[in-house]
Amino acid sequence: MEKKVRDIGEIELIRRFGASFGLDRTVKKGIGDDTAVIEWTKSKYLLFTCDMILQDVHFKLNRATPFQIGWKALARNVSDIAAMGGEPKYALISIGLDPMTPVKTADGIYKGIKAAAERFGINVVGGDTSRSRKLVIDVSLIGQVEKRNLVTRSGAKKGDAIFVTGFLGGSLKRKHLDFIPRIKDARALVKKYSISSMIDISDGLVLDLWRVLDASRVGARITESGIPLSQDAVSFERGVTDGEDFELLFTMNPGEAARLLRSARPVTDASVSLIGEVMDKAYGMRFVDDNGREKKMNAQGYLHF
Amino acid sequence: MEKKVRDIGEIELIRRFGASFGLDRTVKKGIGDDTAVIEWTKSKYLLFTCDMILQDVHFKLNRATPFQIGWKALARNVSDIAAMGGEPKYALISIGLDPMTPVKTADGIYKGIKAAAERFGINVVGGDTSRSRKLVIDVSLIGQVEKRNLVTRSGAKKGDAIFVTGFLGGSLKRKHLDFIPRIKDARALVKKYSISSMIDISDGLVLDLWRVLDASRVGARITESGIPLSQDAVSFERGVTDGEDFELLFTMNPGEAARLLRSARPVTDASVSLIGEVMDKAYGMRFVDDNGREKKMNAQGYLHF
Repeated sequence: MEKKVRDIGEIELIRRFGASFGLDRTVKKGIGDDTAVIEWTKSKYLLFTCDMILQDVHFKLNRATPFQIGWKALARNVSDIAAMGGEPKYALISIGLDPMTPVKTADGIYKGIKAAAERFGINVVGGDTSRSRKLVIDVSLIGQVEKRNLVTRSGAKKGDAIFVTGFLGGSLKRKHLDFIPRIKDARALVKKYSISSMIDISDGLVLDLWRVLDASRVGARITESGIPLSQDAVSFERGVTDGEDFELLFTMNPGEAARLLRSARPVTDASVSLIGEVMDKAYGMRFVDDNGREKKMNAQGYLHF
Repeated sequence: MEKKVRDIGEIELIRRFGASFGLDRTVKKGIGDDTAVIEWTKSKYLLFTCDMILQDVHFKLNRATPFQIGWKALARNVSDIAAMGGEPKYALISIGLDPMTPVKTADGIYKGIKAAAERFGINVVGGDTSRSRKLVIDVSLIGQVEKRNLVTRSGAKKGDAIFVTGFLGGSLKRKHLDFIPRIKDARALVKKYSISSMIDISDGLVLDLWRVLDASRVGARITESGIPLSQDAVSFERGVTDGEDFELLFTMNPGEAARLLRSARPVTDASVSLIGEVMDKAYGMRFVDDNGREKKMNAQGYLHF
């Protein structure tokens, strides 16, 4: 039997893809983080990311307004820039839609994109339109970050404290359509603290935590009771594996963590919860319940294939 | 009856879209040229463009190899960078494909992208994968151009000579799947000559010429017999309206034009043909046949809606 993309999975597909490309010295990070990182000016890096959303995969036309779809298309990318500690700057919008789409729908999508662009200070500088039976929107976004404020997935160290912002799970009920990417919170954190690693939780806590651990070559011990579950979460299992929270997951060394926990005035709008500790790689990824029982976790969030 | 996207057409759709966005001073050109132009360093601009190709719109799976599809996805964007006088640098690849796609097909697409990336010196720094019933690839590309070498659509002046590279029409037979974007030719032209305007011919000579005239607020008189028609072109009409030639259309003042025509050693690999003259706006766009008869032309190339 011929092997299908489904058989190898998304992670292996991206790995194959990434492995085949050579990069020059101006590329600081290529495939494998929330955004690519490229030399820009003496004090700044350029961040470069893209994200495609498709009808019936990421949204349903009868359950989201055109405005929400436009907002979401851009906000997902902003969340990736936030995860690097940066600010979004320039966006391109590629959109494929059916010629029989009502003009009102197209206008609604643009209004959602515009609202997000204005809120986050983004210049929409171009795009592409095409015929497509199903609505598809791909946004590519250039951002920037001061070199001293760059945070990647790969800096977590054994002994670091693990934090998340906001509440997890339950996003699929509603929030995924009009979430506010944590750009303000991320900027405040990188300016005030030394963050060792960060990622935005787009595919569920378990999978995105695994990505940080894999990139940093470490393990983690997560205290189940420390996880700030959303009231909308259907169950604990779903809360830590359902996608589209768009909260931040980050790590700090114990000194910085103490400083964050002690601070009288929080620097973030969102709440910040301590959920665990970075362990060595051999430990793997384990969740601990109230009785001290440890459970090995596998990375099984929202995978596309 | 509710208005559909089909009723207003692609040009109006993009106009509505473009009109709604505010841009800061770092954006030199937004929507309305082959790429966006953004301030970068003292001597260089950053160019930013994207292009989406969809199964059954831009290619058919049973008539193109996976390698050709990958090549084409990246090469189209390279052609846009060429039209600005620049060089491509960093690309992101968003790909939506059916989970039942053979791994061999995905590998073939990546090989095509890789071949184009290597040939044109591009760093593929990331991307996104998603489920999609029809194959869709959106490439976004960052390029750079020395400020003195930037060419836009909007600089054509009355009296300028109009040139095209290579041969037009007939691309849909085969060439559109493995064309060589005119990056080398464009770089040679902008370095050696003063080019007043340039565009890559992606939607047929008539429509892309109209884009230059519209942006430059001028008209044009095209000598039919001067147009270098491809041997594969089905007819003259089709030759000047069929899409995907990916040749360059450019204008030069008469002095520079004379210098180009006199030069013993051509700077381009492709042939360069003088096809007409820039007129004032009121003249419109006219084709002239061998008997001196003038024909008014409308912009009707390959529009997506």
